[in-house]
Amino acid sequence: MATEKRRKSRYTKGNFRLSAEISALSLELERGERRALSKLISILDEDKSSALTLLERLYKDGKRSYRIGITGPPGAGKSTLVDRLVFYIRKELKKRVGVIAIDPSSPFTGGALLGDRIRMQTHFNDDGVFIRSLSNRGERGGISFSARLLAGLYDAYGFNFTIIETVGVGQSETDIMDLADTTIVVLVPESGDTIQTMKAGILEVADIFVVNKSDRQGSEEIAEELRQMVHMKNGQPQGWVAPVVLTQASKDVGITTLFNEIQNHMAKGRDDSNIRRKLSKNREIVEVALADLKVKLDRAINHNKKFKGVSTVEGVNPYSVAKILIKTIR
Amino acid sequence: MATEKRRKSRYTKGNFRLSAEISALSLELERGERRALSKLISILDEDKSSALTLLERLYKDGKRSYRIGITGPPGAGKSTLVDRLVFYIRKELKKRVGVIAIDPSSPFTGGALLGDRIRMQTHFNDDGVFIRSLSNRGERGGISFSARLLAGLYDAYGFNFTIIETVGVGQSETDIMDLADTTIVVLVPESGDTIQTMKAGILEVADIFVVNKSDRQGSEEIAEELRQMVHMKNGQPQGWVAPVVLTQASKDVGITTLFNEIQNHMAKGRDDSNIRRKLSKNREIVEVALADLKVKLDRAINHNKKFKGVSTVEGVNPYSVAKILIKTIR
Repeated sequence: MATEKRRKSRYTKGNFRLSAEISALSLELERGERRALSKLISILDEDKSSALTLLERLYKDGKRSYRIGITGPPGAGKSTLVDRLVFYIRKELKKRVGVIAIDPSSPFTGGALLGDRIRMQTHFNDDGVFIRSLSNRGERGGISFSARLLAGLYDAYGFNFTIIETVGVGQSETDIMDLADTTIVVLVPESGDTIQTMKAGILEVADIFVVNKSDRQGSEEIAEELRQMVHMKNGQPQGWVAPVVLTQASKDVGITTLFNEIQNHMAKGRDDSNIRRKLSKNREIVEVALADLKVKLDRAINHNKKFKGVSTVEGVNPYSVAKILIKTIR
Repeated sequence: MATEKRRKSRYTKGNFRLSAEISALSLELERGERRALSKLISILDEDKSSALTLLERLYKDGKRSYRIGITGPPGAGKSTLVDRLVFYIRKELKKRVGVIAIDPSSPFTGGALLGDRIRMQTHFNDDGVFIRSLSNRGERGGISFSARLLAGLYDAYGFNFTIIETVGVGQSETDIMDLADTTIVVLVPESGDTIQTMKAGILEVADIFVVNKSDRQGSEEIAEELRQMVHMKNGQPQGWVAPVVLTQASKDVGITTLFNEIQNHMAKGRDDSNIRRKLSKNREIVEVALADLKVKLDRAINHNKKFKGVSTVEGVNPYSVAKILIKTIR
């Protein structure tokens, strides 16, 4: 028992070596000061070397926002849906909500997304809403750590809900969706091919399916296809069976039904920690540790003199360099 | 100059601490002994802790196989195309070729893939061909390191070509395709929706587009759509412009044209190291270092007594555990 206690304190009392500025901002953040939230975000945008310690400092078990993940192909109307959910949470539930919108790295879809962002600006005068876009341009793999970091700041700030919106249903989106308590996969009647392509990935992440733009032809067919996929997957009948909700987000149709399903999943999750914690804690710990090590490795290879111009040296063995790099950050 | 020389030797002469068994097998591998290839693969399947050192030991700058990546949605006929390319390389070019086929993690597509594998067995009696499937089941993120490792073994064994086949066109497939010198994205006339969904990702990776099953309706339209996408992307006219090749792999139609385009891209790559090395060396080094650290972190959290049952301790702070984990592997 005493050992257990010692172990517990070891993993709960951290040794928070943070700069005076970040320490002060953390306190302000926990008092709900919006300025501190913005300031911490921009400091960490520049330099993530204190990110892990800050997350450790802000962590409070069981005290965090409920995280709703929204993913699906471009053009499915995800941003409009997020917009409607934000309105619902504010107007109907009178709760506070933070949004993390993850832009794809390509400049090609930039135009459409910019439009989405502008639409969301209707919330900008609302103090109970905070919206932040993350771009993964040139930062492959780092995006899920950035999202985790932002979610940690939102939790400390005191949001009741966090909505994480990401384009696509590939592997990296799956990784980001590990952060969510409830994940919604948004499709449209035209998404038949996408469903076939992404079948396994979609089934793995979806807690709720949405067929948006459901006034279009083929929406009932696609809903039925999804129901059958869910049925085929579900071996154990006592588990959660992902419902399929038809919406027309732009006309506010189906939003209440959708939110009811989110709350059903929330309630189920509270009963069953296996549903709530999709990501095993061990894997989460390794992922966080790796993200922190990546910050250190990137800094070492780019700024440590030892590695200056190393990639231009003829005949260099990249594996030898990798080994020396690992020693350097120790 | 002397400093340069010292730096070079530092990064080229490794300190190869490998077990006697692995050392012996490395030598046999370099003599082209097939048994050593199989043996090393199964040893590393069990335990990757010596993977980085083995890669370092086997690395020979400029002496490696030419890597062809093949990706695209399920049902596009990728495996048949790989099969045809293997035949072409064996019969027409009289060269040796290794195949790395990456299975998706889902059991749902297992059936189809098994069929593909069986079709490939026609090559099993050919000593100049080696086929290996990698599954990423439960090993998120680790698959690209496993593929890199396998490619390193193929290089040392003396294959002229390595073909890497992967299902899907999401982010993790993009990461795997970083290994390839020439990447082929395979689509079918029905892939219109996939193209729209995956546009940015597809454009980022594709050196050559293939529209397979081109006897089907709509193949010319999809080819034209791809040409326009490539045209829109191509800001600098002096760069490589991804060609669109129509094939019917199952009837051996278009394979010679496709291989000619592969050789064009190969030739272009030799002229222009920016094309050949899509992955910057620094990023490659960091990725390899991270993969090695991940092996160490996974082992520590799963086998070090310090972390036994840590995730079940009430109120545990995962960020504190991550920090202690990092210290443990140092």
